[in-house]
Amino acid sequence: MNETRYDWLSDRWVIFAPNREERPDQYRNTGLIQANEIIECPFCTGHEHETPQPTLVLPDFDLDETSTNRRSDIKKNGRLKWQVRVVPNKFPAIPRHESFRDETIFSPLGSTPSTFSDFEFGGGTTERLQTATAQHLFQRNVPRGAHEVIIESPVHVDTITMLPVSHVSMIFEAYRRRLNHWRAQRDLKYGVIFKNYGADAGASLFHSHSQLISLDFIPRDIERLNQRLNLHHEQYGSCYICQLIMEEEDRNERIFFSTEHFVALCPFASRFPYSFSIVPRSHKSRYEEITDDERDDLAIVTKKTLASLESAHPHAAYNFVLQTSPFGHCNEEAQHWRLRVIPRLSKVAGFEWGSDCFINTVTPEQAAKTLRSHMQ
Amino acid sequence: MNETRYDWLSDRWVIFAPNREERPDQYRNTGLIQANEIIECPFCTGHEHETPQPTLVLPDFDLDETSTNRRSDIKKNGRLKWQVRVVPNKFPAIPRHESFRDETIFSPLGSTPSTFSDFEFGGGTTERLQTATAQHLFQRNVPRGAHEVIIESPVHVDTITMLPVSHVSMIFEAYRRRLNHWRAQRDLKYGVIFKNYGADAGASLFHSHSQLISLDFIPRDIERLNQRLNLHHEQYGSCYICQLIMEEEDRNERIFFSTEHFVALCPFASRFPYSFSIVPRSHKSRYEEITDDERDDLAIVTKKTLASLESAHPHAAYNFVLQTSPFGHCNEEAQHWRLRVIPRLSKVAGFEWGSDCFINTVTPEQAAKTLRSHMQ
Repeated sequence: MNETRYDWLSDRWVIFAPNREERPDQYRNTGLIQANEIIECPFCTGHEHETPQPTLVLPDFDLDETSTNRRSDIKKNGRLKWQVRVVPNKFPAIPRHESFRDETIFSPLGSTPSTFSDFEFGGGTTERLQTATAQHLFQRNVPRGAHEVIIESPVHVDTITMLPVSHVSMIFEAYRRRLNHWRAQRDLKYGVIFKNYGADAGASLFHSHSQLISLDFIPRDIERLNQRLNLHHEQYGSCYICQLIMEEEDRNERIFFSTEHFVALCPFASRFPYSFSIVPRSHKSRYEEITDDERDDLAIVTKKTLASLESAHPHAAYNFVLQTSPFGHCNEEAQHWRLRVIPRLSKVAGFEWGSDCFINTVTPEQAAKTLRSHMQ
Repeated sequence: MNETRYDWLSDRWVIFAPNREERPDQYRNTGLIQANEIIECPFCTGHEHETPQPTLVLPDFDLDETSTNRRSDIKKNGRLKWQVRVVPNKFPAIPRHESFRDETIFSPLGSTPSTFSDFEFGGGTTERLQTATAQHLFQRNVPRGAHEVIIESPVHVDTITMLPVSHVSMIFEAYRRRLNHWRAQRDLKYGVIFKNYGADAGASLFHSHSQLISLDFIPRDIERLNQRLNLHHEQYGSCYICQLIMEEEDRNERIFFSTEHFVALCPFASRFPYSFSIVPRSHKSRYEEITDDERDDLAIVTKKTLASLESAHPHAAYNFVLQTSPFGHCNEEAQHWRLRVIPRLSKVAGFEWGSDCFINTVTPEQAAKTLRSHMQ
């Protein structure tokens, strides 16, 4: 039974998910990326029955050309000419609330994202340990939300840099739709898309995929981040990120790639060597409001910058995190979504865990220089 | 040139130490613990010339029996019958301020720790980037403090569980003296002892060692931790840790070992599988005020609990962190030192980096049960 527990001392909720101990780990005993050696992969086309019913399928054919009968046929026999497929995680960190009614969506790329206003939420009971003497020490909750896997390709590739830009764009379209879906659910407060690439980044399967977790609470650091963004807006009358882009463009030390819609930069005080952010020039608090043009541009920037990282550090593990504004009310003028890439080239050690103060051995200026020189 | 930089958004200082890129890494290309395969080890006896002049040496002979001449002989030819040796880190995260005058101490175990009141502090200049337009975006400092290595044995062992308890006690004595030393320096605000064991925990050398970092600022999370401890004291009129021990002993679910002076417990809302804390029963804010008896008991508890972890998870990497109260004034009644052990059995992934919300697959109750069953 999954639950969240509150650490009073650090003012932080922790998710306990014992079920995830049992998930398969293709990296175990290898420690290496050996994508080609894996034959039985539940994410490959032809293995659709090994994953739960999808919550989103993005096909490579145009729905307009497909009759309703054809659609239901495809649904029935499960043989889909899909390109991106989103399924509930079989080993969820946050158990899917049973009363979330969902349906498989077949929609061509570029259509207006659908929001599900007709869903039901069961109002799962919140349990709190009622200890008269020390209630504050042992607080716990039953979390609710969702944990989904975005299977990024029907074929067995381990990195999105091997996919065409148009395909990467479809992945970003899947992110848009699923975030839109979860944002529309009442009682959910936060949703994050992330990718774990390579064993050192926490991946357990080779086949290229990312994940979405939505929660009924806002994690502590996200709340603080939002407070800081709001504070900046109050103090300086501007969005922190908008101002940052302006200042970084003036300095031209840490931006290593830019396009019409995006800049890719190594943050001034980044905690990890070679970490970078892809930041939209246009001020939007929600990723989900990205235009189709911007989405296509994001696919280019993401593919190119990740390829540069792979060229500079072959087989480097990395995480990426798509940070959109929390669900529900927020100061839209202060929030600005972005994609953060965190290479896992160094280990987090005792000093960092004991102080939350990080030691970074590579300056962002050096990182930007290296990444710039590896851009194709 | 090392520097700290301020991340305005997360309200956090990051240490940049490009010099540490050049430090040797015995784990590179192996990924495994192969302690016996390393022949050339700078920490082994006979290789003392490969490390900087020690700041503390704990010998295995009684100083009272050693004439002054003998001492200076030993100093001169560098052939010491030492057991624990503390040296400045050759690749420091925090550069040692040049004006710290230090001297090698030869003192038998159990003597009163010396404090150095005669040291000089150069008052290194604090540099701030003075940008009229965006000063808050690019703040930086020149950090000062110290970074030392505690070499825990003259012979090539990779874990302290292979050392006799009396020897482990000497390591804890070295911690006491060095923390005392740095606490006495004016302008330093925080000191932490930590150990990285195994490549996954950030170790780069096999030979058993730990480290000390002292800083001229209090890291953000430590400051918040202290605020929480103070808040608990205000709200409940008691020390959080003292109350926790009492409540945990009542419940008997998460304490897996205890002695006269210590309890070892898996925290209720721990972020990492099998992490545990060794907590002194007697309320002391500073580790350095540990009595000789308590220190000997701590050596027993640490050795036994780490051996249990090694038995339950052979070759598991781990960090430990000795958290003592910050230097300078603090509410002594609210602070309570402790030793935190963080096994590195799982990887921190994108979700955690993007939310600071951790997913733990092992409940502390299960962890305590396992560790209890492996206690010898």
